[in-house]
Amino acid sequence: MTNFLSLADVTDLNALIQSGLDAKANPFADQQLGKNKTIGLIFFNSSLRTRLSTQKAAQNLGMNVMIMNVGQDSWGLEMEEGVLMNGDKAEHVREAAAVIGRYCDVIGIRAFAELKDRDKDYQEQVMHQFARYAGTVRRPVPIVNLESATRHPLQSLADCITIEESKAKLSLARPKVVLTWLPHFKPLPQAVANSFCEWMNARAASGDVEFVVTHPEGYELAPEFVGNAKVIYNQDEAFAGADYIYGKNWSSYTQYGQVLTQDPSWAVTMDHMNLTNNGKFMHCLPVRRNLKVADNVLDSPQSLVIEQAANREWSAQAVLKEILQNLA
Amino acid sequence: MTNFLSLADVTDLNALIQSGLDAKANPFADQQLGKNKTIGLIFFNSSLRTRLSTQKAAQNLGMNVMIMNVGQDSWGLEMEEGVLMNGDKAEHVREAAAVIGRYCDVIGIRAFAELKDRDKDYQEQVMHQFARYAGTVRRPVPIVNLESATRHPLQSLADCITIEESKAKLSLARPKVVLTWLPHFKPLPQAVANSFCEWMNARAASGDVEFVVTHPEGYELAPEFVGNAKVIYNQDEAFAGADYIYGKNWSSYTQYGQVLTQDPSWAVTMDHMNLTNNGKFMHCLPVRRNLKVADNVLDSPQSLVIEQAANREWSAQAVLKEILQNLA
Amino acid sequence: MTNFLSLADVTDLNALIQSGLDAKANPFADQQLGKNKTIGLIFFNSSLRTRLSTQKAAQNLGMNVMIMNVGQDSWGLEMEEGVLMNGDKAEHVREAAAVIGRYCDVIGIRAFAELKDRDKDYQEQVMHQFARYAGTVRRPVPIVNLESATRHPLQSLADCITIEESKAKLSLARPKVVLTWLPHFKPLPQAVANSFCEWMNARAASGDVEFVVTHPEGYELAPEFVGNAKVIYNQDEAFAGADYIYGKNWSSYTQYGQVLTQDPSWAVTMDHMNLTNNGKFMHCLPVRRNLKVADNVLDSPQSLVIEQAANREWSAQAVLKEILQNLA
Repeated sequence: MTNFLSLADVTDLNALIQSGLDAKANPFADQQLGKNKTIGLIFFNSSLRTRLSTQKAAQNLGMNVMIMNVGQDSWGLEMEEGVLMNGDKAEHVREAAAVIGRYCDVIGIRAFAELKDRDKDYQEQVMHQFARYAGTVRRPVPIVNLESATRHPLQSLADCITIEESKAKLSLARPKVVLTWLPHFKPLPQAVANSFCEWMNARAASGDVEFVVTHPEGYELAPEFVGNAKVIYNQDEAFAGADYIYGKNWSSYTQYGQVLTQDPSWAVTMDHMNLTNNGKFMHCLPVRRNLKVADNVLDSPQSLVIEQAANREWSAQAVLKEILQNLA
Repeated sequence: MTNFLSLADVTDLNALIQSGLDAKANPFADQQLGKNKTIGLIFFNSSLRTRLSTQKAAQNLGMNVMIMNVGQDSWGLEMEEGVLMNGDKAEHVREAAAVIGRYCDVIGIRAFAELKDRDKDYQEQVMHQFARYAGTVRRPVPIVNLESATRHPLQSLADCITIEESKAKLSLARPKVVLTWLPHFKPLPQAVANSFCEWMNARAASGDVEFVVTHPEGYELAPEFVGNAKVIYNQDEAFAGADYIYGKNWSSYTQYGQVLTQDPSWAVTMDHMNLTNNGKFMHCLPVRRNLKVADNVLDSPQSLVIEQAANREWSAQAVLKEILQNLA
Repeated sequence: MTNFLSLADVTDLNALIQSGLDAKANPFADQQLGKNKTIGLIFFNSSLRTRLSTQKAAQNLGMNVMIMNVGQDSWGLEMEEGVLMNGDKAEHVREAAAVIGRYCDVIGIRAFAELKDRDKDYQEQVMHQFARYAGTVRRPVPIVNLESATRHPLQSLADCITIEESKAKLSLARPKVVLTWLPHFKPLPQAVANSFCEWMNARAASGDVEFVVTHPEGYELAPEFVGNAKVIYNQDEAFAGADYIYGKNWSSYTQYGQVLTQDPSWAVTMDHMNLTNNGKFMHCLPVRRNLKVADNVLDSPQSLVIEQAANREWSAQAVLKEILQNLA
């Protein structure tokens, strides 16, 4: 693994999931691997889990961590090529990425979708510009996606780890996993939902899960992410017999960035969960209680949300371990 | 010691003070104790001394430190139970605390009083919610108070250490310690004053000091903090024969959060200090010079304010050492 | 070296440059030197390169690093003596510096010019107040300038290292170095230009370079910085035969803090570079592309800007190494 921008960078998903579980069982086993290696964590947006879990994972591996909030610790970065920089961006990503790449062995980047221009968001400009300019042919600097405009692969890997752990406990061979849209008053990116589809489709292809997506009409995700997943517009029907309910809000992809409905009946309550096969509830967090999910679902033994967040540490550690092993 | 929220969490105050003095004499003696242990420092409010001294103390003990400014690095947290989260708080403390607790072995929290609703402030909701949700029965995650709505125990412990050191140098058996209110134009929390009362009352009960509080009428502190301390409304009378003058402003507790007077005659000048028994001046800092205390007091050899702040490192180290020793 | 505030603190410039090159060749050779030593990096202003490179250099030397953004992590600091502190500054530098000095073995400070009051800026109040109050005679706490109102010596040292490296590669005995003003719409400090003059004048005095400054009329730098450098108002004439072009914008010193012209003909293009002796282009970054320098200059093999920024790590490491060696 050089970069970790999406599932496409993973050569062996089963091995990566197992590596996460190994890290969880023995967090400090590879502490020599990161000695005198530095990861820079660059945040264009706020973060709680990603910030702390990635820092922790890096430290478990013996790495040094440097954190920078762009536009707060430093200044805004221009991403477009060939422009006359007479606006509010004081530095170009060509310089910023190259310079950070000289100080760091690995760079993590968080940059959300702006939800204004779909093509621009889906081009993943920030990730690609950093990947292009951070290193050189002779000294590549791996880029780790800490949630980008269209994907959140460290979350998806943690989700895979969580389902794998839970499956084993429950002795489920090929559980039914349902991604359900949840209501929200603010327009949120599609990144977590896209990424979850991408990774669950891979797990479905290898026979590890059955994967279903449910959402109101108008909330269809991009075809390249939905892939062959079964899409059901009736939430109750989708929930029937489900082993894992994965809740998430996203704004419309087709009417880009818009909130088309806030229909509260899509919020997950115990009545919904009772339709499942004693299913577990998952959410990437943060979650607005009683708006998206009822208190009694989140506080029930059926909720996996804390374990899922805890597994972020091990997904980051699995990825960083493989990246460190590939560094010269 | 599991949590360190207030004096009630201290089992042996003399031993804790001595542990701070030992750390000061030999800062790196326990560097193996914190190996592969991580403290998360979570700031709802600004900080200089607490931020740096706690980080330093943790590093002296060999710990890793992760720092997060809530609402700046991440987003606002909902503290109330059972609410529909459709406002500006994106995450509930139930999730945030539990997740941070999974990444950290110890959590420090700073969250000031809002000074709007006395009952709410005095319930210490933020500390208690973190203490409730950060860990589990099987894996408790100690919470360290980095200044809460009503207390600042790391400051009070540093104050005890400072007085202990100074007493020994000056060969004072049972010095007279006076907490005096100081004028200020802004409404400040009662936390430092409350906490100082709590800890000095304990020192008075064991015969280590005599403790007196002086302030204008209307600035009476909460009864549970004043305890048996002698309250004198005449500042000159209170200062007579004092060995230690501890200055602090606070807003009214009875007319909650209000500035009732800014009477400049309560500011500590050399004239005031001359009423004492060649007394030392203490203040937790930051201090507004010439508004609360005259330059020539702060710059005189009678001032202990820098030593007091320096002792914050050792109070934090004593607390963290005991917490680490109690971790499995 | 005790403090590193300006060139005046350097006893042997050649040795310091060599120390930087040695660190670059062998970054972790002195990792025992900084063990259990802590540097505090205090930012009154934003930073990217300085923040990351100084942190990295300190970690290479085995130091612990604590970072604080004044006015964001903490509150504003009063720098004036004897004032009644009834404004927006909650703490005086006398206390802040002394306290930070008790937690840190070395302190780095970044504080830009305000460009309102020339005398005030040129007195370098922030640096001098920290240098005055951070330590004591018995325990001095070295102050490192991370860019002050009138100087940026870590940048200048990196510039010297960069020229030295490049000179050796190009077998240049005494290259012609030209500092040129560049256009910008915002008033920027003179710090980088001042400092570059100060250090290049020293290099010129020892016969290592020939140094020329070029800028529009009205942009004359302070006499104490320009020194004996040759000033040419015609940019083309100055560029003729140059080996190194060092670009930088600054606001007027004589009409203090004003933007007198934004003449785009002063921006460096390939046409300008073609006047030189196949010269290299340097800039401290951040640089606004196509406003100050054309894309094709920055992206050409003639550009040294990334190497220059990379050398910030080694200039910081050379300085910190010497400071650590001088600590008791």
